[in-house]
Amino acid sequence: LQVRGAPAIALLGCLSLAVELAGGAGPSEDLGALEEFVGQKLGFLLTARPTAANLGHEAERLRAFVRQRVETPGVTPQQLRESIIEYIEGLLEKDRRDNRNIGAHGASHILGRVRGDGPVTLLTHCNTGTLATAGYGTALGVVRALHQRGSLSRVFCTETRPYNQGSRLSALELRHDGVPVTLIADSAAAAAMRERGVQAVVVGADRVAANGDVANKIGTFQLAVAAQHMGIPFYVAAPSSTCDPTLASGHLIPIEERPGTELTQLGGVLLAEPEVDVWNPAFDVTPHELITGGIITEWGVFAPSELCQAL
Amino acid sequence: LQVRGAPAIALLGCLSLAVELAGGAGPSEDLGALEEFVGQKLGFLLTARPTAANLGHEAERLRAFVRQRVETPGVTPQQLRESIIEYIEGLLEKDRRDNRNIGAHGASHILGRVRGDGPVTLLTHCNTGTLATAGYGTALGVVRALHQRGSLSRVFCTETRPYNQGSRLSALELRHDGVPVTLIADSAAAAAMRERGVQAVVVGADRVAANGDVANKIGTFQLAVAAQHMGIPFYVAAPSSTCDPTLASGHLIPIEERPGTELTQLGGVLLAEPEVDVWNPAFDVTPHELITGGIITEWGVFAPSELCQAL
Repeated sequence: LQVRGAPAIALLGCLSLAVELAGGAGPSEDLGALEEFVGQKLGFLLTARPTAANLGHEAERLRAFVRQRVETPGVTPQQLRESIIEYIEGLLEKDRRDNRNIGAHGASHILGRVRGDGPVTLLTHCNTGTLATAGYGTALGVVRALHQRGSLSRVFCTETRPYNQGSRLSALELRHDGVPVTLIADSAAAAAMRERGVQAVVVGADRVAANGDVANKIGTFQLAVAAQHMGIPFYVAAPSSTCDPTLASGHLIPIEERPGTELTQLGGVLLAEPEVDVWNPAFDVTPHELITGGIITEWGVFAPSELCQAL
Repeated sequence: LQVRGAPAIALLGCLSLAVELAGGAGPSEDLGALEEFVGQKLGFLLTARPTAANLGHEAERLRAFVRQRVETPGVTPQQLRESIIEYIEGLLEKDRRDNRNIGAHGASHILGRVRGDGPVTLLTHCNTGTLATAGYGTALGVVRALHQRGSLSRVFCTETRPYNQGSRLSALELRHDGVPVTLIADSAAAAAMRERGVQAVVVGADRVAANGDVANKIGTFQLAVAAQHMGIPFYVAAPSSTCDPTLASGHLIPIEERPGTELTQLGGVLLAEPEVDVWNPAFDVTPHELITGGIITEWGVFAPSELCQAL
C-alpha cells in the first residue's frame, strides 16, 4: 500500500516497467524472451492489488500490444523495447485527459441534477485526486471542475479510517488548490448530509462489475445507504478502464483484508490492545441500485447497470 | 471530556459533590446557605455537558430533595449535609441495579426478536459499559447479559472516532470479561452488518426527547440508517432518566461541537494540516422511526414514541 488509488497503481506499475526497460533490463537478443519478461513483470504487479480493475486492463492491453509488435515482420528487440516505453508514456497523458473529461462530465451532471442556481456542497470519501491518479483526480476531478466553474460551495472530506487518506491527502491537496474543504469523522457523514446541506456524494472506484456494482474504499457502501436515505444523489467517478465485464456482480470482486494493526495503532500510538480481534476489509461493494447519480467516466455519466454494456 | 458516558457524568457529578460535602465544604451554620451552595455546584455541572440528560434529571431531583429537607421542621445543617451524602450514595446503587435490569430486558427482547435459536451477533458503538456507568453498562449491559446466558455469538465494536472509545474502552473491557469481540473501523459497520451476520445493533443514549428521538455519540444516526437498510433491529439502551420530556423532538437537543484538533492529531501524531477546517459534532440525533428495535430501559423495552409518556 505504498502506492494507492486504482488509476495510480495501474500507471505506476506500467511506468516502473518502462523505467526498467529504458534502463536496459530484460533480454535484448530475442523478441520472444523480451515478451516473456514483460509478461512476468505484469503478472507480478497483478497479484499485488487484487481489487483494482485498472491494473488488469492495462496489463491485458499492454500484453496485446506487445504480441502485435512481436508478430509485426522485421521488428527488432530494440524497436520492441522502445515501442513499449512509448506506449506506457502515452498512458500517463491519457490518464490526465480522462480525468479532465471525468471532471467536466461530472460537474455538468451534478449542476443539472441539483436544484437551485447557487454553488453546490459535496461530500467525498478517501482520496481520488492528484495523489491517486496522474494529476487531476477522478472524484476530486469533479470537485476541482466545479470549483473552477465557481460552482462549488464546499466539499466535506471524510478522514477515511483506518489509513486516513481523507485527512492526510484529500484535505491537503484541496486546501493547497484553494478549494473550500471541511474535514469530518467518517461517522459524521450522514449528519453532514442532513445538517450541513450536502447536495451530492462523489467517490472513486477500484472496480466496477458488469451489473454496475462498485468496489471502493471501505465505508463507501455506508455512505451510499445514507445518501439514499437522505435523497441525495450518489456518484461514482472512475475511468472506463475500472469496469470489469468479466465479473457479473459485485459479489465476485475480491476484497483485500488488511492487518488489524491499522486499527490498533497509529504512528506508534496504541489505540487498542494489540491482541484484540480486528476485521479490517480495505474495500466494500456498493450495489448498483444505490449509485443513484450515476457513474461518471471520461465518456460521460452512465446508469450503473448500463455502463459496462455501453463501453 | 475527562469523564464520559451520560450516566457516569451524572453520577460522578453528584459523587464529587458528596465528597466535597463530606470533606466539610460549604456553609455549616445556615440551611438556606447550604442549599444555595449545593444549587450552585449543580448549576456548574450542568453547563459542562449540555447534551447529557441524566445530569439535569439528577440535579433536579437532588434540588427537590434538598428543598424538602430544608422545609422539614427541626433539620440541622449537619443533618441536611448527611442526608445529601446518603442520597447521592443511593444513586450509585440504583445505577448498578438499573443497568442489570436494562441488560436483562434487552437480552430477552433481542432473543425474542431475532430469528433462529443460535447465539446472536451484535454491533455496538462508542462505550456504554463499566467505564461509562457505575459498573455493568447500558448497551454493553445488554451484551453482557446475552453473554452470561450463553446467547452471544460475537459483538462488533466500532472504534468510534474521533475519541476512539470503542477501541480504547469497549474492546478492552469486553475482552477483559471474556466476551467475543471484534473491533472494526466506523466505516466498516454497514459491511459488517451485511457480511458478518450482525443481527441487531445496540447503542446508548445521551438524551431522549419526548417523541423518542435520541441524541448519542456521532455516528449513531448513520448506524441506524444502515440497520434500517439491512432490516436489522436497532436498539437504544438507556436508563429512564435519559428521557427529557421537556424537549418535544430531537431538533431541540443541544449538540456539543468539539475542537478540530481531535481529528487533526492523535497522541502527538499529526493526521492533517492543523489549519484545515473541521466540523466535529460530538453527538447526532437519530429520529425515533429509525429505532426499530426499541428503547431498552430499566422498566422494559418501549417503542421510542411511547417511552416518555410511559414513564
